[in-house]
Amino acid sequence: MLGPRLQLLLETLRKLLRRGSESHAERLLKKTRLEDVAVVMRFLDLRFQRQVFDLLPDNTQRAELLTELDAHLLSDLLEGREVKSLVRVLELMSVDAQADLINELPQTLAQELLNALKPAEVEELEDILQHDPETAGGIMCTDYFALPEDTTAGEAIQALQGSDDVEMAFYVYVINEHGHLVGVVSLRALVITPPSTPLRDIMASDILSAKVETDQEQVAQMAARYNLLAIPVVDQSNRLVGIVTIDDVIDVLREEATEDILRMAGVDESAYESKSLRKNLRKRAPWLFATWLGGLAGSLLIGSFEGQLEKQVALAAFIPIVLGMGGNVGTQTATIMVRGLATGHISADVGWRYLGREFLIGVSLGVLYGTLLGVYAFTRYSGEAHPLQLAFTVGLSILSSMSVAALVGALTPLIFDRLHIDPAVATGPLVTTTVDILGILTYFLMAGLFLSGLGG
Amino acid sequence: MLGPRLQLLLETLRKLLRRGSESHAERLLKKTRLEDVAVVMRFLDLRFQRQVFDLLPDNTQRAELLTELDAHLLSDLLEGREVKSLVRVLELMSVDAQADLINELPQTLAQELLNALKPAEVEELEDILQHDPETAGGIMCTDYFALPEDTTAGEAIQALQGSDDVEMAFYVYVINEHGHLVGVVSLRALVITPPSTPLRDIMASDILSAKVETDQEQVAQMAARYNLLAIPVVDQSNRLVGIVTIDDVIDVLREEATEDILRMAGVDESAYESKSLRKNLRKRAPWLFATWLGGLAGSLLIGSFEGQLEKQVALAAFIPIVLGMGGNVGTQTATIMVRGLATGHISADVGWRYLGREFLIGVSLGVLYGTLLGVYAFTRYSGEAHPLQLAFTVGLSILSSMSVAALVGALTPLIFDRLHIDPAVATGPLVTTTVDILGILTYFLMAGLFLSGLGG
Repeated sequence: MLGPRLQLLLETLRKLLRRGSESHAERLLKKTRLEDVAVVMRFLDLRFQRQVFDLLPDNTQRAELLTELDAHLLSDLLEGREVKSLVRVLELMSVDAQADLINELPQTLAQELLNALKPAEVEELEDILQHDPETAGGIMCTDYFALPEDTTAGEAIQALQGSDDVEMAFYVYVINEHGHLVGVVSLRALVITPPSTPLRDIMASDILSAKVETDQEQVAQMAARYNLLAIPVVDQSNRLVGIVTIDDVIDVLREEATEDILRMAGVDESAYESKSLRKNLRKRAPWLFATWLGGLAGSLLIGSFEGQLEKQVALAAFIPIVLGMGGNVGTQTATIMVRGLATGHISADVGWRYLGREFLIGVSLGVLYGTLLGVYAFTRYSGEAHPLQLAFTVGLSILSSMSVAALVGALTPLIFDRLHIDPAVATGPLVTTTVDILGILTYFLMAGLFLSGLGG
Repeated sequence: MLGPRLQLLLETLRKLLRRGSESHAERLLKKTRLEDVAVVMRFLDLRFQRQVFDLLPDNTQRAELLTELDAHLLSDLLEGREVKSLVRVLELMSVDAQADLINELPQTLAQELLNALKPAEVEELEDILQHDPETAGGIMCTDYFALPEDTTAGEAIQALQGSDDVEMAFYVYVINEHGHLVGVVSLRALVITPPSTPLRDIMASDILSAKVETDQEQVAQMAARYNLLAIPVVDQSNRLVGIVTIDDVIDVLREEATEDILRMAGVDESAYESKSLRKNLRKRAPWLFATWLGGLAGSLLIGSFEGQLEKQVALAAFIPIVLGMGGNVGTQTATIMVRGLATGHISADVGWRYLGREFLIGVSLGVLYGTLLGVYAFTRYSGEAHPLQLAFTVGLSILSSMSVAALVGALTPLIFDRLHIDPAVATGPLVTTTVDILGILTYFLMAGLFLSGLGG
């Protein structure tokens, strides 16, 4: 998804830097959007990233690049730089971007920067830093536009004209004498109203707002559901303290989708962000260990049926397909449930509806594939002893494994949701391992039922 | 994620409708946001959905509900209604919402509605309907605000004041005498500029735009990357024909994430949307069939090693864990690659970098878990013949299976991306099946190497 334009930019930039043609690179950077530079940085070696940062025309551009850049690149890029020159860049960033940056830096550098900033700036910044970075308070920006109720539309427009640093001002918020949020006026309403009208008369007073401690995902869902360009954030006493803008909402929605996707596969966080092998291993090893333990349990279980296997070695051949079909249906079902819960299309409170449906799907698919495999097994082993019994064992095992898998795949996310644990961790390794063990058990129980006492 | 407020709304509404207290339900609906009604509709029976639609205060509310409602609910909700009354609702919707609706309805009803609409409205609507619904042309709205270059800021504000139906007007687009898009002015710039300034002097002329045929995902990525509230859409001759607004961008980003997530699990489209069992089965059966075929190949393969299994039945016990560990690493790697490609954090053009890294991760994890399992196998089967050989077979098989799985999991999405096939279809069933077959093969080859000719 880099696209031919960015691909060309990346290649040209890399070529110029490799050759040492700094002045050409400088010119190229000058006419490139910083959002594009930020994307291309991901694919450059660290020394080239540092060069690009230095070659930007001025500190305003550097500030914007730092705002747009992937969080995990920041620390390496800025380490070892002079604090004084960094502060000059930092001062040109919005407070929420400053907070994002500080949160990514090693503690000593972060502290040095905080010490070097002007006291007024530090205060605002520390207001944000005190909140969990994944809450409304942690992602809000404090450059919003708020006016008292009796301000007129004309005065509001004049006030807007006088301000220059208000990030994405789409709404004018209306506050009362206590600083409490009491209304909101869209920029458009302001423009199309007679100038003498007080804001009180044109404001919408049925306002949606988030609390500082509201989870960022909820804030994003709110903006998405009600098509809002910004959500006001209030503190415990309902005083307006910031806004979360739509561009941050989009980032949050994408982050949360990525997190869910990776969790479903049993990976913690954005593993593609980290170049360090050690970190990567740490992000993946835990779930693999769960799978390993499950596999061990499975092998113990199979080992305990060794007698049956010795009588009918053909049984071994069908273990992977019985487990594979179950695992697959389980993953499908769990994925549908997890995504449905995340987007609000499935509600845990009417969960039993889905359980029934998913179980029926599992049974239907189980009958289909069980019959297919039974017929195959009968044909393939018709020359050997008890092909019909083998066919029934195999076919019924597929049926049972797929039905149980559908049920487990649907039930686990619902239970996790009720327990307020992210259902995404329920898919993948957990469901597959459970389904595997149940599959092995039923398979050998069926085999015992149909084949035992028949003699090899 | 329904939340306590919506949960309460759902329960109250359901109770009132069940009891037949229509007037109470009507009053409840009157004071509820339509976005909330739209969410709650998902969980109501069809007859209650229809009642809610009828109980809304007026057609403006009905029009808004239809705009907000999940696409898959529309057809059942509107079927059998009088065309004349439907048209009255339809006329109150924006053209892009009309198009979305028409696209979801059965052909005969859609045609009847088109016939009953006023000719002027039909023309605009058909302009949109001719485009693929998943392109910029298919999701754009045609209520944008465009003015000639020599208009002054003051005139522009007056023009804005005179219009009432412009959807989310954040930007004024500037066009030349041929209708070509030449610039853009933000509403904020308009407000803070002296009224006599012509738009030409304050417009940004370096504009990002989409073509009507641009894929909706690309449009959304563009808006997200450059923090834009709307993307102008131009036709082949660069004439402005519509805009894609940020609320649609958010919908697209979520839809595409859902599509990717489900595809990775081998499910087509949003399976949770469909209540029909038959449709659901059709969405899931194809990939399961692929898994079934893969499983069959696996069972044939194991069958061909029956001689070895007969000599050492213990081999069967480790099949699931060898395949499970490989499958898991493969899925992890493939998921990381697919999501990275989708978000632009991984580029296929520097794919070899990731291949190397992922392979190294696979080998490292393989050494860890292979050693663990080898030690376990040796201990567990120390009383039987050749425990050391069994330990080596099992341990080296895990190592090989995990390394190969990491490689396959990383390589498949990259290849699919190069071939312009959605890499998401590469994960899940395809990777797992490939990894299974390769895993079985190496396992029995190892077994042959270490255990053959030893005699049980």
